[in-house]
Amino acid sequence: MSTKYPTLRVNGERLWQSLMDLAEIGATPLGGNCRLALTDEDKDGRDLVCSWLKDAGLTVRVDEMGNIFGRREGANPDLPPVMFGSHIDTQPTGGKFDGNYGSLAALEVIRCLNEQNIITEAPLDVSIWTNEEGSRFVPVMMGSGVFAGVLNKEDALSATDKAGKRVGEELKRIGYAGSEPVGGYPVGAYFEAHIEQGPILDTEQLPVGIVTGALGLYWYDIIITGQETHAGPSPMSYRRDAMKAAMQLINKIYTLADDCQPDGRVTVGEMDVMPNSRNVVPGKVRFTVDLRHSDDTQLQKMETQMQDIIRQSEVEGIEIEVKVINRMKPTVFAAECVGKVRTAVQNLGYPEKEIISGAGHDAVYISRVIPTAMIFVPCIGGLSHNELEDARPDELKAGADVLLNAIVSYAGRHTA
Amino acid sequence: MSTKYPTLRVNGERLWQSLMDLAEIGATPLGGNCRLALTDEDKDGRDLVCSWLKDAGLTVRVDEMGNIFGRREGANPDLPPVMFGSHIDTQPTGGKFDGNYGSLAALEVIRCLNEQNIITEAPLDVSIWTNEEGSRFVPVMMGSGVFAGVLNKEDALSATDKAGKRVGEELKRIGYAGSEPVGGYPVGAYFEAHIEQGPILDTEQLPVGIVTGALGLYWYDIIITGQETHAGPSPMSYRRDAMKAAMQLINKIYTLADDCQPDGRVTVGEMDVMPNSRNVVPGKVRFTVDLRHSDDTQLQKMETQMQDIIRQSEVEGIEIEVKVINRMKPTVFAAECVGKVRTAVQNLGYPEKEIISGAGHDAVYISRVIPTAMIFVPCIGGLSHNELEDARPDELKAGADVLLNAIVSYAGRHTA
Repeated sequence: MSTKYPTLRVNGERLWQSLMDLAEIGATPLGGNCRLALTDEDKDGRDLVCSWLKDAGLTVRVDEMGNIFGRREGANPDLPPVMFGSHIDTQPTGGKFDGNYGSLAALEVIRCLNEQNIITEAPLDVSIWTNEEGSRFVPVMMGSGVFAGVLNKEDALSATDKAGKRVGEELKRIGYAGSEPVGGYPVGAYFEAHIEQGPILDTEQLPVGIVTGALGLYWYDIIITGQETHAGPSPMSYRRDAMKAAMQLINKIYTLADDCQPDGRVTVGEMDVMPNSRNVVPGKVRFTVDLRHSDDTQLQKMETQMQDIIRQSEVEGIEIEVKVINRMKPTVFAAECVGKVRTAVQNLGYPEKEIISGAGHDAVYISRVIPTAMIFVPCIGGLSHNELEDARPDELKAGADVLLNAIVSYAGRHTA
Repeated sequence: MSTKYPTLRVNGERLWQSLMDLAEIGATPLGGNCRLALTDEDKDGRDLVCSWLKDAGLTVRVDEMGNIFGRREGANPDLPPVMFGSHIDTQPTGGKFDGNYGSLAALEVIRCLNEQNIITEAPLDVSIWTNEEGSRFVPVMMGSGVFAGVLNKEDALSATDKAGKRVGEELKRIGYAGSEPVGGYPVGAYFEAHIEQGPILDTEQLPVGIVTGALGLYWYDIIITGQETHAGPSPMSYRRDAMKAAMQLINKIYTLADDCQPDGRVTVGEMDVMPNSRNVVPGKVRFTVDLRHSDDTQLQKMETQMQDIIRQSEVEGIEIEVKVINRMKPTVFAAECVGKVRTAVQNLGYPEKEIISGAGHDAVYISRVIPTAMIFVPCIGGLSHNELEDARPDELKAGADVLLNAIVSYAGRHTA
């Protein structure tokens, strides 16, 4: 049906202005944003966005997790809503675009439909998820996780920050402890636009990416125990040097990525050395391994290879312990939703670039219960979770154009 | 002259008892000692040792650095004194033997000479050096360093602990800010007995080691700068991973020791990773390199090889910065003093084992201005700077026997 209508376009300047207006709340010296979940700044941000949703004619409701939904009714009240949005909480030294973009692109879709008097068949729900970042309260992607039934609501409400404040208390304090149940009702589809937070689109000079899924991740702690001794009086042959063993092991672990490019990733992000003193041979080294891949079979293979490497690295006097911290399988987004994004990209005349999300997003949890797809736009230099995070207005507009057309196509355009 | 006398022996039980009595001051739960320099515990330890020195008939004087000297006059007042001793301050979780052994072996030498009515030609000075450990106040080997003119007295007295207390104030507070000038007078020789603090003598089951010198050490900080990015969205080929670069570099740096065994040592004791987060590709890694060798030419060669390795490791997008923190040349002890130790070892019938000190000792500084030698005894498992530090009474006695005979031989036995 939708093919008989011309391709729709958002108002890129209005979208940019909304991003800049929201960014004034919790603005940081270097041009970034600090609106940690459920702080006063988050409340101010929520209040501003809710006022915009209401001004756009939406009926705003808040659930028990503080997730915000703005409903625009469709022509057919029997259809489940099509949902789209993101989050507006930030990292402590976060940027203006992460989360905010997907949230305000959703608002811009509504404003655009209003202006053009377009009614969809299915109702539309703009969603703003609570605590995606996990900077103040863990776990990350909390609101969407509870919505999707992946996380337990009571656990989430009991989570505390470093000062001992609970999520439940803080939601009440800022006025966002809603009465709606969290999830559990039918939703037709979920779409989320987001900055890529990586370098691919920016390097390849592409305005949008069709996100087909998300990498799985396997997380480990590896603890190497040798013996702490004085650097001076300990000849090399007498040492049980945990650091030396760690260095050799890590070099081999990095090679796990060599056979599975471009989707395989190996990161050693964290290392603690004990006692961490210049003239002491380290007795213990703990480091993390983060393996990622789009294919779970490949992830399992990487894990097996890592175990082989560790077994082969065993030497007398050195103990190697491996703790599995997390195993999250890769996400494959729903073909019908990805198809809507692809068609929108084609109709708008952008190059068709498929991309797999490396980072976690609310959409990853939501995809477990609702057919989902995402749209990526470039961020400059791939820089994100950084005050200097930046994006180009024309590419932000391009992503929102794709979002608008995909949603109208999925929800169906009502013929008056 | 001394050859016509029989070989002398100390009272091993008395030495052991003195060690156990001193160890009651600042005793720790696991059987170690905590007497940080210039604390109340250090004062109590000093008071006890001074009372023993006085009981042994010594004239005690204290210099402006709090170094304690116990003088036993010789038959010939024109000869410079022969000095011997160590320190009684400890690490926070130190042992009962490090420093205390050399100090109380010196006391035992005096007690023994008294008992056997032996008068030496040269005067004898038992020395107890201030703040060898450097745990509370840096730099280490402070009292002996100022005595040897390596460290500046005013700087040392102005050094502060973490609470902001100055060495000078604390010396006054505990009653050990003496009036004697620090060093600057002729001393014939310096001898120091010490536990090895390494594994060689214990592993080879040897009771004493003839210490011929100390390893030189070259210290570096190496800072690797790449770019901090999210682990998920950053494909391997786009990364500038400071951790990966560090691991490859460190593995090559360890090989520097391969060609110069047994004296060459390479230690990477300290590493700081930024931001040190499981799912972030590290943007910066700082680590230390500690190179040691008995031969300065070899140390210079190791440094040159390290610079070559770093140059060859340069890749685009990764910066490697090398800071030289310290270059301390190897110490070679005085042949005449080492000879006295060797002869004593031979006369006592112990195996002649030469050993080079890997750790710093007061003797290393003193050797810059006074002919010096050291005697090592085993510590069990090479364990030191640890509450579980342990040593065998018969080996402690063996070392003190060597000290006694070396001193009498150097100072000359007076024939009545």
